[in-house]
Amino acid sequence: MRILVGNHIDPSIRERGDMRAWTQRLLWFARPGDLLVLCCEPDGAFLDYVLAHTGVKHSDLTVLVAPAGAWGDKLLDPASLADPAFLQAVRAALDRAGGAAGVTEVFALWPSASVARFAAALGITDRFPGAAFFAQGGGEIGNNKANFRALAAAADVPILPGLVCRSRQEAIDATGQLLESSGSGAVVVKQAHNGAGVGNQLLVRDPQLAVDHVGARHLHHLTPGETGIAAYWEQRWAWASGDGRWPVVIETFAPGADAVYSEHYAADTGTWPTEMGRLLYVGRRLSHQTVPLDEVSDPVRAALLDGGTRLAETYRAFGYRGHLSADALVLPDQSVVFTEVNAQVSGSLHIYQQIARCVVDVAATPRRKVVEYHVPPTWSVPDFATFLAVLDETGLAYDPHTRTGVVVSMPAIPLAPQAPAQFVFCIAYDPATGYDDAFTRLGERFQILPATAVDASEHVGHAAVSFSS
Amino acid sequence: MRILVGNHIDPSIRERGDMRAWTQRLLWFARPGDLLVLCCEPDGAFLDYVLAHTGVKHSDLTVLVAPAGAWGDKLLDPASLADPAFLQAVRAALDRAGGAAGVTEVFALWPSASVARFAAALGITDRFPGAAFFAQGGGEIGNNKANFRALAAAADVPILPGLVCRSRQEAIDATGQLLESSGSGAVVVKQAHNGAGVGNQLLVRDPQLAVDHVGARHLHHLTPGETGIAAYWEQRWAWASGDGRWPVVIETFAPGADAVYSEHYAADTGTWPTEMGRLLYVGRRLSHQTVPLDEVSDPVRAALLDGGTRLAETYRAFGYRGHLSADALVLPDQSVVFTEVNAQVSGSLHIYQQIARCVVDVAATPRRKVVEYHVPPTWSVPDFATFLAVLDETGLAYDPHTRTGVVVSMPAIPLAPQAPAQFVFCIAYDPATGYDDAFTRLGERFQILPATAVDASEHVGHAAVSFSS
Repeated sequence: MRILVGNHIDPSIRERGDMRAWTQRLLWFARPGDLLVLCCEPDGAFLDYVLAHTGVKHSDLTVLVAPAGAWGDKLLDPASLADPAFLQAVRAALDRAGGAAGVTEVFALWPSASVARFAAALGITDRFPGAAFFAQGGGEIGNNKANFRALAAAADVPILPGLVCRSRQEAIDATGQLLESSGSGAVVVKQAHNGAGVGNQLLVRDPQLAVDHVGARHLHHLTPGETGIAAYWEQRWAWASGDGRWPVVIETFAPGADAVYSEHYAADTGTWPTEMGRLLYVGRRLSHQTVPLDEVSDPVRAALLDGGTRLAETYRAFGYRGHLSADALVLPDQSVVFTEVNAQVSGSLHIYQQIARCVVDVAATPRRKVVEYHVPPTWSVPDFATFLAVLDETGLAYDPHTRTGVVVSMPAIPLAPQAPAQFVFCIAYDPATGYDDAFTRLGERFQILPATAVDASEHVGHAAVSFSS
Repeated sequence: MRILVGNHIDPSIRERGDMRAWTQRLLWFARPGDLLVLCCEPDGAFLDYVLAHTGVKHSDLTVLVAPAGAWGDKLLDPASLADPAFLQAVRAALDRAGGAAGVTEVFALWPSASVARFAAALGITDRFPGAAFFAQGGGEIGNNKANFRALAAAADVPILPGLVCRSRQEAIDATGQLLESSGSGAVVVKQAHNGAGVGNQLLVRDPQLAVDHVGARHLHHLTPGETGIAAYWEQRWAWASGDGRWPVVIETFAPGADAVYSEHYAADTGTWPTEMGRLLYVGRRLSHQTVPLDEVSDPVRAALLDGGTRLAETYRAFGYRGHLSADALVLPDQSVVFTEVNAQVSGSLHIYQQIARCVVDVAATPRRKVVEYHVPPTWSVPDFATFLAVLDETGLAYDPHTRTGVVVSMPAIPLAPQAPAQFVFCIAYDPATGYDDAFTRLGERFQILPATAVDASEHVGHAAVSFSS
């Protein structure tokens, strides 16, 4: 049996709000006998839905809800994992299953020191890979976009021209310097700790530059000259640096690039690649991603694998253990440059490891692929039941015989009263026909706004934020 | 020829004030042909003094002062290294010496991104070890006491029980937990970026606990119970975390420990140990240090070397290149635990590499040792000339024939008008007789206050701060 912990980045590093829906993707990882720890009661309909797809019996799982802490049931409070009564409940559950000796692994969505302490309290530290490193806050080292640039540079992994800044003046100087040398006249500003482009801002000089496909939620048109740069940083240094908490990354913007990733596992014994995929941004939001990776040349694939492997080895060398995702861009000249490493359970693992491989078995004949879509901000889905009903009516629900159709990846929890549900859902599809038709048919039922009605920089509810890793 | 850069930790990470005196220890490293970059005009008397000891001719050196930046001539502004006129002056100096091709190494006291850019501007990036890593802010990764704990834990290097905290609440919880489990009823709070104990605060429950010899400038007696802990953190979280910028380390306090270090060099080809030494604290200030290390058992020496080597290999694995110091404690039971790594040119390198080995040649027969003292806060030395005059009068000046006596390590620059000079000076001595007599005789001339007159927590001027690495 394993213990799966549905946590998220430690709120003391970055508080991400209501993560109830996003952390329930944990249910996809459940295997018979597992004990799951969540921040909230699992959504009953979603739990049944997942188990119907994975074939795991509810009675073969133990689900424990950690005590409400500083964030109520919206987010697992790391301190709750040390709650004596909760630990007692976990021990009792383990005893019913034959004792802690039977635990083969502690698996957490985020490598928190609190998980290491939890494992220690249960006497199973050795079942949490990297426990000693994570117990001392190592999780933060591996998930910092500034650290990434230094580590990648040391490992001779290609990155875009860019700089790491620790002060507003350094940011002003770096922006000027990078705009000067950048062919695009644009740079991307990145918060050290954020995800899915939500912590990125694109600074452009030319308002005509095509940026819709870019993973940068925020956009700023610089007024000409140094004044424009200084004015930008006057306004945004506090945002970019988290009020001075983190270094800020500034990179030249690479127009016309494709976003891809290579995921790896770092173990005591070595690292190995787990999957590659592609990210697609629409309106500068992460719109959908596809696995496995296709439509890349062999040299591109080799460069992605090589850089991802070297990064995984570097992260392993300083102590990281577990899954990690190396994000990269394929530039128009087909060179591959890396943009960040997320040394945590990414927003892709449940897609490729569980849905694509276990539910759909994409490698079987005939081959299938999986795309996972975010419900677009132009749609309005009232609730999970309505979505499932439409899937049934349209024949788009996942069909195990054709191995095609829609699998919803997470519960639909409205993040504000009356707000439409935002969530992610997969479409398993035949690579020969693609996924556009299915997506279009769903859009016909749910789209209520034209694309132009959405401000790309706006957070729609907080849901889009919640999805990101 | 080499280029030596007399910088200090990037002020954007931690601004350390007037470092003119401390950074002039760079002069000890100068070899014929070298080009030195300083933040200020070198102190003429000190420059002559150093060269008289090292045998380097003034005419064989080029000393360039970087343009005054945000800190005037008190501290090298990293941006000044990119100043076009300054770069022109450096190029001209290199041309006079046969061109940049003749530069064998760029050596900096602190591994700043600005030094990497400086090397790049001169076309000699490959002469600055670790340039790619440092260019992306890697220097900060290797000099963070929180990162140290995670990296050491991953490398299975022994550390004291402790935790890394990212919020005040985490600090409160950690303090309670560590006090509970600590035999001493005391913990040490450490800022992530500081040195020589200046960023450390000792929290004790028992006012009788002996703490005079400890490297923790600040002391706080906790009032009993949880209230005392919460009250402490209410007051000190902003100080400890640099207003939330850095994680805070909290470790159990180990009474009766000896402070030692093992220094190493990390190169592309591997790492090697360079020296071991001992640090001695008086009144919780760094008072003096001795090299080479003696009075330790073979097992202690082996444990120090082993842990230091493993840390050096870890730091090398993620990209660090250059000198590094692994600090450790020898506990009363003779176990060795590591407390931090300073991945920069430490405050020890000039002592052992230059003064002990080159000037004194401690390994020659008869063997010698070197202690470096801080001018104690109870002394009043009016200026460098007076100090040298007293050395002559007392016969304590360094004598190349006996290979014993005093070598002043840095210029005596008063940090405030009328303030007494504070600096560091070495005593080369015969291990059979020790250094107490020389120190006592100097004290007879300069001590004006009883030891009890000094508040250990107070910064005397800022000088004691300036000395630290």
